[in-house]
Amino acid sequence: MFGKYVNEVRKQSPLVHNITNYVTVNDVANVILACGASPIMADEPKEVEEITEICQALNINIGTLHQSSIDSMKLALARANEKNHITLLDPVGAGASKLRTATALELLKQGTFTVIRGNSSEIRTLINGTGHTKGVDAGASDAITEENVTDFVRLLKEFAKSHDTIVVVTGETDIVTDGEKTYFIRNGKKEMSSITGSGCQLSGLIAAFVAASPQEALCATAAAVAAMGLAGEIAYENLQEGEGNATYRNRIIDAIYHMNGEILEGGIRVEEF
Amino acid sequence: MFGKYVNEVRKQSPLVHNITNYVTVNDVANVILACGASPIMADEPKEVEEITEICQALNINIGTLHQSSIDSMKLALARANEKNHITLLDPVGAGASKLRTATALELLKQGTFTVIRGNSSEIRTLINGTGHTKGVDAGASDAITEENVTDFVRLLKEFAKSHDTIVVVTGETDIVTDGEKTYFIRNGKKEMSSITGSGCQLSGLIAAFVAASPQEALCATAAAVAAMGLAGEIAYENLQEGEGNATYRNRIIDAIYHMNGEILEGGIRVEEF
Amino acid sequence: MFGKYVNEVRKQSPLVHNITNYVTVNDVANVILACGASPIMADEPKEVEEITEICQALNINIGTLHQSSIDSMKLALARANEKNHITLLDPVGAGASKLRTATALELLKQGTFTVIRGNSSEIRTLINGTGHTKGVDAGASDAITEENVTDFVRLLKEFAKSHDTIVVVTGETDIVTDGEKTYFIRNGKKEMSSITGSGCQLSGLIAAFVAASPQEALCATAAAVAAMGLAGEIAYENLQEGEGNATYRNRIIDAIYHMNGEILEGGIRVEEF
Repeated sequence: MFGKYVNEVRKQSPLVHNITNYVTVNDVANVILACGASPIMADEPKEVEEITEICQALNINIGTLHQSSIDSMKLALARANEKNHITLLDPVGAGASKLRTATALELLKQGTFTVIRGNSSEIRTLINGTGHTKGVDAGASDAITEENVTDFVRLLKEFAKSHDTIVVVTGETDIVTDGEKTYFIRNGKKEMSSITGSGCQLSGLIAAFVAASPQEALCATAAAVAAMGLAGEIAYENLQEGEGNATYRNRIIDAIYHMNGEILEGGIRVEEF
Repeated sequence: MFGKYVNEVRKQSPLVHNITNYVTVNDVANVILACGASPIMADEPKEVEEITEICQALNINIGTLHQSSIDSMKLALARANEKNHITLLDPVGAGASKLRTATALELLKQGTFTVIRGNSSEIRTLINGTGHTKGVDAGASDAITEENVTDFVRLLKEFAKSHDTIVVVTGETDIVTDGEKTYFIRNGKKEMSSITGSGCQLSGLIAAFVAASPQEALCATAAAVAAMGLAGEIAYENLQEGEGNATYRNRIIDAIYHMNGEILEGGIRVEEF
Repeated sequence: MFGKYVNEVRKQSPLVHNITNYVTVNDVANVILACGASPIMADEPKEVEEITEICQALNINIGTLHQSSIDSMKLALARANEKNHITLLDPVGAGASKLRTATALELLKQGTFTVIRGNSSEIRTLINGTGHTKGVDAGASDAITEENVTDFVRLLKEFAKSHDTIVVVTGETDIVTDGEKTYFIRNGKKEMSSITGSGCQLSGLIAAFVAASPQEALCATAAAVAAMGLAGEIAYENLQEGEGNATYRNRIIDAIYHMNGEILEGGIRVEEF
């Protein structure tokens, strides 16, 4: 059922406009290529509207904000919304500085995002308007536990509905909801957190998957989340003695490069909540 | 005959100043080191003239333009021309936005480039003054076919002559011309297009090769183009089961690291057109 | 004796704020993760003070300066000094342009650095106020020889004392001094210079090590220097046929990922001078 979304990306090869941070940008470009889509990066206010217009999706990531990239995000979002393009927000580090929190909230207020993806601290920050992210990682007090999961999912569903968006919270278990249907996805390895930008890569991947299947955005999102986690599992199996996080990073993108519908169907661990 | 240009780079270790995009900058630096040259990246207007002055070559890549990097490109180009340094233009995405097209054309008008390298859409955009690049990839309508190749080469030769430059168009077959002599190079693998920045890397490589053999710029350019393609072939042979585009990227740079005159002579597929 | 500093980083997982260049930033982030610490990159003046405040260390690297990142460096340094955080300066290319030399000197004048790390040309530039760096590599005339080493160490000790800092000069032999005690470290492989950013990575590593053991900053610095060199040796042993500088880069970070106190104790080559 979810496998077809992988194949659809390879068939359509959507063009994804990324306004993203300079830390993980190369990996984001390579993972978008690995899944069969095509990336373009542009963050100068003078060109972002034109660039976003020739693309099918816009991926906004606030990992290393600059004044000019903030302006570009707003211009590109407005144009993408006008053209009904797929839009994704990755609120990296929201809660870690006022600038990040405010930028994420302003973007949310200004326009519509098809998908918003973050860790539990970042998403709580968007919901509450403030937060206590530990740098770019989720704070311990924001961990999802058996005790708080039902309440947390309720919050996420309300947030998704009120913003007409799909929310993805990644962590040990990934949660994907559009406010109606909610999926729990249990793919992935904890070692993925030792790589910078596995979250940024997933956001690029989701943008590509949803751009190829815009009518089934929720399932396409869940497929991308599971594909990334499964790639992390396959890559982990492929690690040779002595290899660590740098090689693991490459092997994950390599696993996305070889991903297809059948592999995803064989490895996906998803359930409706 | 072309092998000596590889050896010359290792002997002279030219310093290459790169004003380039932040997507593929790390790979560009590593491939320049791999061939035996030395990279320096600097794009702040306040320092680019000094930096370009201590280098032998200037590599300008418009992949992620900012207002300040555009200013830097102009300042650095003027200084490099004044000092008779090797200069290269990589018009990434020319045709995809007015800013990219205009910046490339302004640079062309302002000064001289020893070499200009792009895909067929980007180079057509420079020739025609407008274009329809698909993001950063060549548009389908710009593909080179048996039918249009003679006309296209004629256009390239005129362009090369009128701008006193060497033009390189990369694609399934790579074309290198200075307006007099034209080489067709058939090294490379189609899988290289699944890596972000293989074109940017080639531009860095050409700058290094020509800086080491400035009196034979056309042949040194052809040698760099063939070396990159051959590295793509060698790296492809070295791929292990399960490896994809991320590892392929590393293996290509690795193959440049081990490239020498003998290897290039053994694998180059070049003919005069 | 030096092994415990490796273990301490994994135990405490300090958060390191990096204002660094866009060339090697991804590798810096991954090596900081590899040693067990956590990186955050932020260089927008509007947020750097807040970001630096939630971190334990500030790593300033002038590899690709922009006007706004210079402002950010000054703001962040002031706040980090106020909070008594660990601070590190990597004066990449000081001596190659007036902007780089002046920025490094201004930062030195403005505040205090726990550690300053560079190659011999960069550190000589800081000491003399001018220099002749060959791009981002040490100039030949600045090489450390048997003849000049005693004089050079004397200079370094004076500089360390007068600036109340630990100075690290990396080269064939690495020198670490706080003005009182001086260590010579002979780990590493010459092939590490064929990778862009091995110095930047070491600076990130030192910041993490010292943040985890601030009361023993000199020994923690020496441990980080030796760990990086030893990782270079281990990675070199792990290289397979055909692998070059791109894969070597990953294998070095991988070796840091697997580094522990016992491995460091077994491989460190350190002596007091």
